[in-house]
Parts: sequence; C-alpha cells; structure tokens
Amino acid sequence: MKKFKINPIGTALQKELQHKIDQKTKPLGALGRLEELALQIGSIQQTLTPALSNPHILVFAGDHGIATEGVSAYPQEVTWQMVMNFIQGGAAINVFCRQHNITLHVVDAGVNYDFPDNLEGLIHNKVAKGTANFAKGPAMTIAQAQQCIDSAARIVEAMHTKGCNVIGFGEMGIANTTAASALMSLFCDIPVAQCVGRGTGLSDTALQHKVHVITEALKRHNKYDTPLAQLAGFGGFEIAQITGAMLQAAELGMVVLVDGFIATSAYLVAQAIEPAVKDYCIFCHQSQERGHTLMLQALDVKPFLDLNMRLGEGTGAAVAYPLLQSAVAFLNQMASFESAQVSEGTQQGVKA
Amino acid sequence: MKKFKINPIGTALQKELQHKIDQKTKPLGALGRLEELALQIGSIQQTLTPALSNPHILVFAGDHGIATEGVSAYPQEVTWQMVMNFIQGGAAINVFCRQHNITLHVVDAGVNYDFPDNLEGLIHNKVAKGTANFAKGPAMTIAQAQQCIDSAARIVEAMHTKGCNVIGFGEMGIANTTAASALMSLFCDIPVAQCVGRGTGLSDTALQHKVHVITEALKRHNKYDTPLAQLAGFGGFEIAQITGAMLQAAELGMVVLVDGFIATSAYLVAQAIEPAVKDYCIFCHQSQERGHTLMLQALDVKPFLDLNMRLGEGTGAAVAYPLLQSAVAFLNQMASFESAQVSEGTQQGVKA
Repeated sequence: MKKFKINPIGTALQKELQHKIDQKTKPLGALGRLEELALQIGSIQQTLTPALSNPHILVFAGDHGIATEGVSAYPQEVTWQMVMNFIQGGAAINVFCRQHNITLHVVDAGVNYDFPDNLEGLIHNKVAKGTANFAKGPAMTIAQAQQCIDSAARIVEAMHTKGCNVIGFGEMGIANTTAASALMSLFCDIPVAQCVGRGTGLSDTALQHKVHVITEALKRHNKYDTPLAQLAGFGGFEIAQITGAMLQAAELGMVVLVDGFIATSAYLVAQAIEPAVKDYCIFCHQSQERGHTLMLQALDVKPFLDLNMRLGEGTGAAVAYPLLQSAVAFLNQMASFESAQVSEGTQQGVKA
Repeated sequence: MKKFKINPIGTALQKELQHKIDQKTKPLGALGRLEELALQIGSIQQTLTPALSNPHILVFAGDHGIATEGVSAYPQEVTWQMVMNFIQGGAAINVFCRQHNITLHVVDAGVNYDFPDNLEGLIHNKVAKGTANFAKGPAMTIAQAQQCIDSAARIVEAMHTKGCNVIGFGEMGIANTTAASALMSLFCDIPVAQCVGRGTGLSDTALQHKVHVITEALKRHNKYDTPLAQLAGFGGFEIAQITGAMLQAAELGMVVLVDGFIATSAYLVAQAIEPAVKDYCIFCHQSQERGHTLMLQALDVKPFLDLNMRLGEGTGAAVAYPLLQSAVAFLNQMASFESAQVSEGTQQGVKA
C-alpha cells in the first residue's frame, strides 16, 4: 500500500492571514466561523488569496455482507438502484451539486450489481460484489483494503490533475451505518450501543438487533493490530476507498470536505494511518445519525452545519460548500478599514 | 399608520407538500430542516413547485441618540462611513449578496449625514438625522414611528412589483444593539442584564455601563401601552423601518429572511402588531450577540445557521440563503421512489 506523505499545514502564514481578516471592515471576529474557514483554507493553500477551483464530490458505493443480518430498513438492491438514480441525476446529491456547480462522479467501489460499461459519470473501481458478512469473519482481505486505498488515491489524483483543489466524499451502501458503527466503536473506544443509530429508519426492535449483531462480531474478532486490519475487519469497500481518497487529497494539498457518519468513519481510519490529514479536512455537518455526535466529540471537531440531515451521499458536504465560498470571498473581496476609510473601534464605549 | 392584513399560511397544502417530500428518493425525514424549509416556502407560495425569484436584501441604516452615552465600541461616524462602504461594494453584505445573486439596496432611514442624491443603490428615506437620546426621553415621536413603518412598506411594495418574492432585512447603526436590547427587555419581559451583549466588541466595564444606561432609561419611561409607542420609545429609525418592511412583505406573501439580533428586535415589534407575520419568516441564523439566544427562545424558533457571526448588515440572512435554494431545488428536482424505480424501505430490518 502507498505510504502517504502529508505536510502539516503549519503556522507560517497564519499570522498574516489573521491580520488580513482583522483589517476587514467589521468588528474583530464578527464573521465567526467563516473566519476560521478562511484561515484554514488560506493555510492549506499557503496564500493570502485562496481560491476554490473545480470542486468535485465523489460518491463511493458499495455493498455489505452484513446486510444479510437484517440491519437495514432497505433491501440491498437499493444500493445499485440509487447508483442508477445518481447517474440519472435524480438524487439529492445531484440536486445540490448542480446548485453549487460541483462536479459529481459516482464510484462503484463494490456494488453487488453489474453496471453497463458506458454509464456517464460512473467510475468503475469494483473490488468485489460486496464485502463478506463481518458477523462471520473479516469483511475483506488486507489485500482488498490496500487495493481500495491505492485505487481511490489514483482517482483523486486524476481529479487534481484536472485542476480540482477542493473535494468531498459521499457514500451509498445499504447497511453501511452498521460497518461505520463497528469502526467507530473500535477507533474511538466507545461502547457499541452508543455508536449505533437508526440508519435509514430502523424501529426500536431492529435497532436492538443491530447493536447485538455488531457486539457479537466485535467479540468474535476484534484483535486486529493495525488501522488497515481493523478497516478490513469491519469496513466496506466504499469506506475503505474514502479513506484512501482523503489521504491522497491531503497529500496533494486539497481542501477535503468531510460529510456525515459514514464519511467520518472513513476519516477515523485515515487519521489513524496519518494524523496530519486533519489539517486539510473541513467537517461539514452534524448528522442526525446518533453516533455522529460522539464521533465528532471524540475527534474534538465542531461541524459547520446542524440541520438534522442524515442522508449520506455527500449531501452535508454539498450543502455546506457555499460557506467555504463565503469564507474565501470575504477574504478576497472585502474592503479594509483603511481602503474604505472607516474609523476603527476601541473596546471601551466611545463618547461622541 | 397602515393596517396590515396578513393571511396565516394555513394547512391547506401541507399534507400534499409533505407527501411530495416523503416520496423523494431518501429515507423519511432524511433531509432534516431542509424539508421544514421546503414545507414552509411551499405553504407561503401555496404551490407544490415553489420558486425563489429576484431575491433582495435591504440594509436599513440609522443613527441613535443613545450613542452619546458611550455604549458602542465605534464612533457614530462609522454609520455613514459603512453606508459608503456598502455603496462602494466593499462590505461583507456586498460580498455575500454578489455570491448568491441577491440584489442589495441600502436605505438611509435616518443617518446623521447628508448623502449625495445620486448614489447608486442608496434609497433616501431619512426620517431625521438620528433618533433622540432615549436616556432622556422617547427616541422618536409616534408620528416618526408611523412614518418609518409606512414608508418602508412602500419600498417593499416596489420590490415586490419588480418580481421579488423573497427578501431579507439588514441594518447598520452605531449603538443599535442598545436600542434592540431595550426593546427585547420590554417585549420579551426579560431583565436588561440578560438582554445586553458586547455589540461590536465592548470591554467588561463598558458592558456594565450599557446595562446601566438601559436600566435607568427603562425605569424613567417604560409605561407605553402599544407596540408602536414602545418602538418609538426605544427603537431606531432603521429598526422601525424593518418592522414596517417585514409586515408589508408578509402581507404580500413574500418569504422574509430574518437576520440577527437587531433584525429580530424589529420582528418582535412586527409580531406584536400582527402575529401572523411569523408564518412568512425564516429565522436565518443564531447571532453570537448574547441576547439573541434568549430572544429566539422567547419566540420559540430555531435558527438555521449557528456560525458565531455577529456582524449585522443582513449577513446572516445572505449566508443562509443557499439553504432556501437547496430546499426549493430538492422539492422540485429530486426523483420519487416510483419515478426512479427505487425500492422503498420498512422500519424493520430487511432480511435479504
């Protein structure tokens, strides 16, 4: 597997960026978290005049052997049906990408279906027709996990070559909240019951069953000693490919949009492999999927949006994208106190 | 003063709208608060296919007599200087309006400055060169408050005639968090100390002074018996004009974007005059200005964004605007389970 070399973004330019932000015609700090975004994006790009160019979202799709344990509200065929929906432009992620001029590609990371060769917008990167059932053994082999990471890295590299410097990763895969919950429990050391939520809409009984399935699986095989082996044990092909995609994007100095519960589970693995990936990541939204709150707390990050969304597909990343544009735009376009000839303030009240 | 006739949006179309939302290719409720927005905008426009057309933001600017009490971190001249900054396109609100194709106008509601006649983008609607100092008596006369409401209503009517059906209101006015805090204390019946924040950046001492100034003023004269008299007692010309603008926009069936602390104080007055205005209002963001949290709680509304912003100018409304576009877009453009031939789910886990 590729060894990723990610440069921590460092603090070299931070003081200058902060000075530029503070000279804008507004009270100090008054643009709140948009200032934080401007600082991060400027630091990633190592410039006082950052720009977002050719934004992409890649939706990785894969099927999960664990689906046979009855852990999802939807049948497995929905994975391929939704891929076709993406290709035809009818899913939520299509709508939001069109809205924000984000180029969307769908990656078949391991869907249990034979797609035609000539579907526009579909990238064929299938490892197998779904993972093995992790209730019975590892979800995939170490070689498959490595293949996921390396091949996804190549896909991201191709986007970067086309001038893309900001990229988000979404996912589709029936039963993948089950895989993500197992990874969360392992990587964050949080009891399974707190990592499991209703996914696409489980009843109380089905939720208990989901907890049981994961708990038993973790009992049976959880003695993996590397992030890669843990990923292979419980992950999905789409999750593993997102892990590789995030690492490669960070290595290339791209801005990485982290979506919801599943995407953040892939980030857990990426961070365990190379902690510096964090500097390049923007945590776009708080998913309503229950475990996501604890997962983000464990990572000590605060997402930008909290709209009770829980759809996946990269929708949280897409909906948050205009905030990045706002951050870059105010940094580049706003006047300074000096240029606009506006008087500066003091912290004391001013007696006129 | 004009008597506003605002139709409550009613529930006639809600069931059909909800059905349309629920048939989209996503788990029930998975788009969270975007679904809530789609429902509200569809209900306001009484259609299953809503559209946002010719969006506008009006920034009302006015000066405040209370500024002479030393309650702001900036001198009063910053009000007119920032108006010139708006006209020249260098303020945060200019940047965000350009980003989202929102037409921006600045309204001189009562700035203590003589602007040239021919400034493009400036609407002359000056009532006086700043309000009176409410530490010593009412900020304005009842006649002035009425003039604000009626004249702002006419401005909104003109925008509506040009095809605008979604409008936000921002403000600029040194010391206007002091006016807004006084109104909040009166309208929400909350002690002054909880209504007061640092505005554009006061020190602890200056903050205490601000609390003292408002508390004394409210002791001296707070026995007004109508919303209009309360508005005249402590408001500002920009606040009063926003009140009238909101009422008119609601009467015309427009979608109203409510910005932060000052704009919400104008909403408090509008709602006291005509409660049905609420149906047309979208509370865009949680300001970091301290009183705003309690103000929104008192109104029992939950804002869509919480980015620690506290700039005013309508910036919270502008930054939230793409969320409205996302809501309308998914409602109009997403495929249904039937049209995309995707299998529907059950609440029980599915045994494959």
